[in-house]
Amino acid sequence: MSKANYVRPIDFRNGRVDMNHGAGGRASAQLIDELFARAFDNEYLRQGDDAALLPVPAGHRLVMATDGHVISPLFFPGGDIGCLAVHGTVNDVAMLGAAPLYLSASFILEEGFPLAELKRIVESMAAAAREAGVPIVTGDTKVVEQGKGDGVFIATTGVGVVPVGRSISGRHARPGDAVLVSGTIGDHGVAVLSKRESLEFETTIESDTAALHTLVARLLAAVPEGSVRTLRDPTRGGLATTLNEIAKQSGVGVLLDEAAIPIKPQVNAACELLGLDPLYIANEGKCIVVCDAAVADGALEALRSHPLGREAARIGTVTDDPQRFVQMATAFGGRRVVDWLSGEPLPRIC
Amino acid sequence: MSKANYVRPIDFRNGRVDMNHGAGGRASAQLIDELFARAFDNEYLRQGDDAALLPVPAGHRLVMATDGHVISPLFFPGGDIGCLAVHGTVNDVAMLGAAPLYLSASFILEEGFPLAELKRIVESMAAAAREAGVPIVTGDTKVVEQGKGDGVFIATTGVGVVPVGRSISGRHARPGDAVLVSGTIGDHGVAVLSKRESLEFETTIESDTAALHTLVARLLAAVPEGSVRTLRDPTRGGLATTLNEIAKQSGVGVLLDEAAIPIKPQVNAACELLGLDPLYIANEGKCIVVCDAAVADGALEALRSHPLGREAARIGTVTDDPQRFVQMATAFGGRRVVDWLSGEPLPRIC
Repeated sequence: MSKANYVRPIDFRNGRVDMNHGAGGRASAQLIDELFARAFDNEYLRQGDDAALLPVPAGHRLVMATDGHVISPLFFPGGDIGCLAVHGTVNDVAMLGAAPLYLSASFILEEGFPLAELKRIVESMAAAAREAGVPIVTGDTKVVEQGKGDGVFIATTGVGVVPVGRSISGRHARPGDAVLVSGTIGDHGVAVLSKRESLEFETTIESDTAALHTLVARLLAAVPEGSVRTLRDPTRGGLATTLNEIAKQSGVGVLLDEAAIPIKPQVNAACELLGLDPLYIANEGKCIVVCDAAVADGALEALRSHPLGREAARIGTVTDDPQRFVQMATAFGGRRVVDWLSGEPLPRIC
Repeated sequence: MSKANYVRPIDFRNGRVDMNHGAGGRASAQLIDELFARAFDNEYLRQGDDAALLPVPAGHRLVMATDGHVISPLFFPGGDIGCLAVHGTVNDVAMLGAAPLYLSASFILEEGFPLAELKRIVESMAAAAREAGVPIVTGDTKVVEQGKGDGVFIATTGVGVVPVGRSISGRHARPGDAVLVSGTIGDHGVAVLSKRESLEFETTIESDTAALHTLVARLLAAVPEGSVRTLRDPTRGGLATTLNEIAKQSGVGVLLDEAAIPIKPQVNAACELLGLDPLYIANEGKCIVVCDAAVADGALEALRSHPLGREAARIGTVTDDPQRFVQMATAFGGRRVVDWLSGEPLPRIC
């Protein structure tokens, strides 16, 4: 949109979100011009309509994913709600083997929220989108009264394309397939919880929040089409719940090898302190790969050649199990069922 | 997803949203299975992955739009947040002359919200999607603590396709073009405000919330390609603000004819009572059409032949105005500038 003449620029140092910013009039337009349009700037957003017009390559199918982000606190070691909102949605698109192309962003702001913090979040989001190469092409902003929201919620939707014929899904795991994970688990959840509980550790545990589409592309280029059955990022509910979802969708079981699951020692220590099991802790920059066991070594090598997959490991095998249990061979030689997350939830972790 | 065995079905009569419903474990899966998947059921959602895989017709470009819905109250005469969330996003896609194909839905629920009301909202949303012929193909649910949200917020994103070569945009209005509106203005905003203020009128004023894509398709089929320059739904900020947006984007002015603007008498009366100007009141089932004056009669006829356009009217003309003013020739023979919405906002109207 061309610039309107506003009486004075928005005060991003001391100003606060007010109800006018969500009313759809001049104050809304000014917030869009001076914050969102400037930070997210790209040719599609610049069209300035209520929707964006976008080219798509021929011979592809579309992939669409959406995520609401309500994480608390908004800023945490290793990231903030802004970059998380980009990474989370890019990853959901990438988990179908798709190339993410475009993002939309819907902001729900609480009246009184400091504009300086909003600016920091929006700029982090813009940087994450730029780094991922996935522009934010359209958006929306609403404001709710103080006490009816919690600072900032961001719902992002991602659209990508996948070549016709590629079919990666939670439904495709088969008995005998290998189960890999792209790196250490539990980092994100522990980083957020330690910040929330104001826990101090000797070394800061940082969230792993990251966009995984280039890691996925490297993996898929290294192995034959069809040999990767399932990709999924173990976010809320952690590795344990995500594997249960896959077992349920594919009608199979999974046998994990406890000793093979990569966990940072400080994450393990923090989990002990907090009384948590790292298997149930959210990750925001890791993916589970289920693939033909015959290509597992090549897949691991491809993952480890990427900066986000250096600690990739083979952690288990898909089993033929009519009960669809996820089980774990423990370090002590036993076996236990790894159930879905239930009981005390870890709220607002993403 | 295949059915898991839950201990007991969710109590949709007396139950309430709790933090577990958003934690990503078994309770989340059960809410998805027993509410969302059942209400929104379609082949894409049934894939059960974190993203949906979707066919797109060849030779088209993509259109993407997003909207956050925070309307208060959640239920109002003529609709609720559920159908509104479908209509609002379908309309944003349709306003580029695109055929809407798919929707995503991101729910942010407040702990303690009655599940019976959630069910009513989700079923209204499902019915609206079915009626519009636009499936909800992927979704997400988060829960925030009591006092950190306000019942239900819904962010919807829509994707559609437009033939290559069609270019309808707020940037394309030209001096001399005709300005039409598809029906009476102010109905939605007045319906919501009267419910919020518990005002009783002799006749209930109902929201106009509706999906406009079939109206747009009928219009575009009736006039030559290129003769419709701009389509836009005057939601937040109303007719006045939306026309100012178009004037700004296209670098033109607009001259409105006050007597020609269709307003229901009871809406006019309610606006007088509430001290509001109907030109600034939100609509959710109306569109502004800017078209070549030569096709204005044909365009009006096409609009009026559709149930949602029966009261369509020609309300003004695009002018050559370097100041980009929207002006109105009043019933008393004068002229006044119709500015952007500013001052007292009408919060949470959509």
